[in-house]
Amino acid sequence: MQPRLIALDWGTSSLRAYCLGAAGQVLAQRGSSHGIMHLPAGNDFNAAFEQACGDWLAAAPGVPVIACGMVGSAQGWREVPYCPAPARVADLGERLQTVTTALGYTVHLVPGVLQHGRLPNVMRGEETQVLGLLRGLPAAAHDEPLLVGLPGSHSKWVRVRQGCIEHFDTFMTGELYAVACAHSILGRTLRQGEPFVAAAFERGVTTALSADGDLGPLSTAFSARTLGLTGVLSAAEQADYLSGLFIGHEARALGEVTHARQGALPAVHLIGSEALCRRYATALQSAGFAVAGVAAQATEHGLWAVAQAAGLVERPPHTLQFV
Amino acid sequence: MQPRLIALDWGTSSLRAYCLGAAGQVLAQRGSSHGIMHLPAGNDFNAAFEQACGDWLAAAPGVPVIACGMVGSAQGWREVPYCPAPARVADLGERLQTVTTALGYTVHLVPGVLQHGRLPNVMRGEETQVLGLLRGLPAAAHDEPLLVGLPGSHSKWVRVRQGCIEHFDTFMTGELYAVACAHSILGRTLRQGEPFVAAAFERGVTTALSADGDLGPLSTAFSARTLGLTGVLSAAEQADYLSGLFIGHEARALGEVTHARQGALPAVHLIGSEALCRRYATALQSAGFAVAGVAAQATEHGLWAVAQAAGLVERPPHTLQFV
Repeated sequence: MQPRLIALDWGTSSLRAYCLGAAGQVLAQRGSSHGIMHLPAGNDFNAAFEQACGDWLAAAPGVPVIACGMVGSAQGWREVPYCPAPARVADLGERLQTVTTALGYTVHLVPGVLQHGRLPNVMRGEETQVLGLLRGLPAAAHDEPLLVGLPGSHSKWVRVRQGCIEHFDTFMTGELYAVACAHSILGRTLRQGEPFVAAAFERGVTTALSADGDLGPLSTAFSARTLGLTGVLSAAEQADYLSGLFIGHEARALGEVTHARQGALPAVHLIGSEALCRRYATALQSAGFAVAGVAAQATEHGLWAVAQAAGLVERPPHTLQFV
Repeated sequence: MQPRLIALDWGTSSLRAYCLGAAGQVLAQRGSSHGIMHLPAGNDFNAAFEQACGDWLAAAPGVPVIACGMVGSAQGWREVPYCPAPARVADLGERLQTVTTALGYTVHLVPGVLQHGRLPNVMRGEETQVLGLLRGLPAAAHDEPLLVGLPGSHSKWVRVRQGCIEHFDTFMTGELYAVACAHSILGRTLRQGEPFVAAAFERGVTTALSADGDLGPLSTAFSARTLGLTGVLSAAEQADYLSGLFIGHEARALGEVTHARQGALPAVHLIGSEALCRRYATALQSAGFAVAGVAAQATEHGLWAVAQAAGLVERPPHTLQFV
């Protein structure tokens, strides 16, 4: 099969490359750890690029290349100004910027999205994943507002209506959990890297969602230590309990605010690693959300959709207006 | 003046020594950085002790010695079992444990307090400070419940009634702020150690207390970065803004829970460093609390009160029952 698009998901800590065919299907893919903060010696974007897809391009030199994620940030290959929210896929397609590689290839960079306001919000890469998710949903699903959750170091919660990214929020839950484990007093008694203890995680979620959680995560976090001191939780359980606490507080706050904004809790679509999405699904369901599913291949589908919107690949004759 | 008590406030990162006279007044004092995690070479409690008060004891060998704080923890000189809450000063005085120094002096260690429950809580040192504060209040102040706040790496909020520590909560706000600044992505753009920018701090407090704060600190923390990215806050302002956010979230949660528990917000007495207490006073007042004042010399007064309760020093003839 003839490749039609080289699509790169180029984040902070990893680089994933996809070779896509005429219908956007994946013909080949590979990953490396060459995220923009872990480039080959000399901070060499060109070397990382060549390793990721140089052979594919040599074999099919005219194929367009598109990339999303932190590669378009101030610390990336070229800074692409944010697209303001609300943002549609067409808006992103119109705002691609390019860099030319050492071998003369053109790489099209997808902009992130900036939401202005008293608490501004930004994302780079997640907007493309959201668009990829939408592409896989049945047409009827687009009529009502969707809530898309992207768990990670910084989780994003994106409200989408008719293919448009209307609003989004960020939680630093994953990163604050990681630094609390690694650098706070909690790390002295808890142990990470053990098999997942579901009961400890669920205890944390339940605590966050109960009246015991009313004081918020700055307070309940201390119980990971005191439940250890009092012999209730083992070292391995403390880590999963703290994870449940933090994700539970996130789900609780998200539920309360979503209910206040929309009067009801929409079904949530998740995008992310399977293990982390499973934790979030548990917490979200405990907080009253329905979880519609976990999307696969959201990034490559999203890059294909943006490439279509930008005219880099052919648009099929009967495309839904929002993708 | 004749010394009557050597009183040590021996915590994790510092050791403060007081030489007290017949009415508990401070005759001499000194401090060192020999907290239990920063002892002289060889983890030498005896050397730290000698440096702190060896000369005072050599000059008045029969004077009793008392110490509170982490020196009585599992990582301390000797582990003193916690006193369960509710706890009165007499309870603490009855549960002192002793260690004998290399030179043969006896050191009386004050127990911490453990509150059992679904979210257990512990403190070591703060219980003594609370008792010291009570000693300085007029008799009428003891008739109604007091809320005593002890800001620090782990702030404690202690409800006291008639000289009894009834209940307390912990917030890890200070430590989580420190690790977020030092180890999270927020540290890449913020700058600490600059002169305090009150307006940035107050902006953080206001945000935490407003509808913008409804998503909680795991979410609002990210705005310290995005307000920097969008040019609203300078690097130095981001640190004080984040401090205001976190302390504001603490004050908000404390206010909501206290209101639910007690139906009204009591006046708060603060114990701690002047600069930090000033930040907390700002946030507490914004959250609807009255701040009754910041207590001075709470630790040495508390150590004196416990020593009296234990019979280590003479009790004056007309002592109020609760101190």
